[in-house]
Amino acid sequence: MNLLIVNRSELVSDSTALISGRRVSHLNEILDSSAGSGLKVGLLGGKRGRGVIKKIDSESAEIDLDLTDDPPAKLPLTVIIGLCRPKVLSRLIADLTAYGVRHIEIVQTFFGDKGYWANGLFTPEGISEALLKGLEQSMDTIEPTVTLVKRFGPYSEDVLPKYSMDSKCYVAHPGSGTKLGDIAAAEQSCIAVGPERGFTKYEVNQFLKAGFQPVSLGERIIRTEAAVHVCVSNFL
Amino acid sequence: MNLLIVNRSELVSDSTALISGRRVSHLNEILDSSAGSGLKVGLLGGKRGRGVIKKIDSESAEIDLDLTDDPPAKLPLTVIIGLCRPKVLSRLIADLTAYGVRHIEIVQTFFGDKGYWANGLFTPEGISEALLKGLEQSMDTIEPTVTLVKRFGPYSEDVLPKYSMDSKCYVAHPGSGTKLGDIAAAEQSCIAVGPERGFTKYEVNQFLKAGFQPVSLGERIIRTEAAVHVCVSNFL
Repeated sequence: MNLLIVNRSELVSDSTALISGRRVSHLNEILDSSAGSGLKVGLLGGKRGRGVIKKIDSESAEIDLDLTDDPPAKLPLTVIIGLCRPKVLSRLIADLTAYGVRHIEIVQTFFGDKGYWANGLFTPEGISEALLKGLEQSMDTIEPTVTLVKRFGPYSEDVLPKYSMDSKCYVAHPGSGTKLGDIAAAEQSCIAVGPERGFTKYEVNQFLKAGFQPVSLGERIIRTEAAVHVCVSNFL
Repeated sequence: MNLLIVNRSELVSDSTALISGRRVSHLNEILDSSAGSGLKVGLLGGKRGRGVIKKIDSESAEIDLDLTDDPPAKLPLTVIIGLCRPKVLSRLIADLTAYGVRHIEIVQTFFGDKGYWANGLFTPEGISEALLKGLEQSMDTIEPTVTLVKRFGPYSEDVLPKYSMDSKCYVAHPGSGTKLGDIAAAEQSCIAVGPERGFTKYEVNQFLKAGFQPVSLGERIIRTEAAVHVCVSNFL
């Protein structure tokens, strides 16, 4: 936790927050904080700065805030990922948040197990927790937006074509002519990565029809998780 | 498992292998294989090609081999990682193997918990299993070498300087002037990434003294695992 994040609902005055739960355990157990300890604090959706602990016990902490700095700039990047194992996606959502990605879309494709949607990750609480991890890691306060897409057909007809109207759009596809490393970062980009067994031919065609350009990540088959990191790296 | 890998000790003739264990379960349960089924096979340390199952039951499988192709080329890259959580390192060893990295070094640094070395990952079997995952994923047959370094001092004095004699060497270091994306892939490269809380000032200095160039991965603090992916991406 490089930045302690407080919610607006935890503000007891303009410059004081009262927090509880996991963050207080972290302050007590990992940071060994006490009254007077200073730490880096951010307001979810707002500014970052310094905090000083006024009171702390095992349950809650009262923190004086002096929030003057803007959060770091976002990457002008949308990442689309084929539904895969929730544990992997949870890590990816946190990492993509840490990278500063602006929008994340998890999409049901042919090779994604529909049963995964029942996982706790996909509840609003599960998503928030993953986002918060990423914000705490990278000292950001602005969550990316996350959309869960359960039907590929209408999405690929109605949503994907809109992306290519104002963004450079790419779909990772083995054997494509263009290498990812050869594309330059644009003002707005969007990149799609398939699930563990890849996009089907139909799905790739839908991306192409929507204006996405196929890009290759190299000769080797790598895991979806690794592929997402490789894709985002190109835009850092 | 994109490639089934057999060991030399499992060859019952020049062109027949008898395998057991996890791979047989995978053939039965995931691939629903039977006598006559074809699959992609590689010989650990050797060639790749086609296999045809001659006999299979719940315990073992006999496979006819026709191995004619060389494994994919390796990346001329050494990756040094500060000791961190074994679960993360196990995933990274598999992913670095899949990327085709030639040599991996796990190094005890100040912010690495010494207790981690007792983890099963660091037994020869644990390492082999992680390597095999990476080979099966990327259809490679040649394992990278892995070295475990438990004392940073002598290593940094004796080993690191040798790397910079025949490789371009980099250490990921926040706030460095040179951005990772601005360095070009060289014939032989080596890159070092710190553990979750980073390298200490002393450790960074030891890398610099040994001829490593500091490179920045961007403004944001990302997890060690993500940082390793970002570093390797630059050399793909």
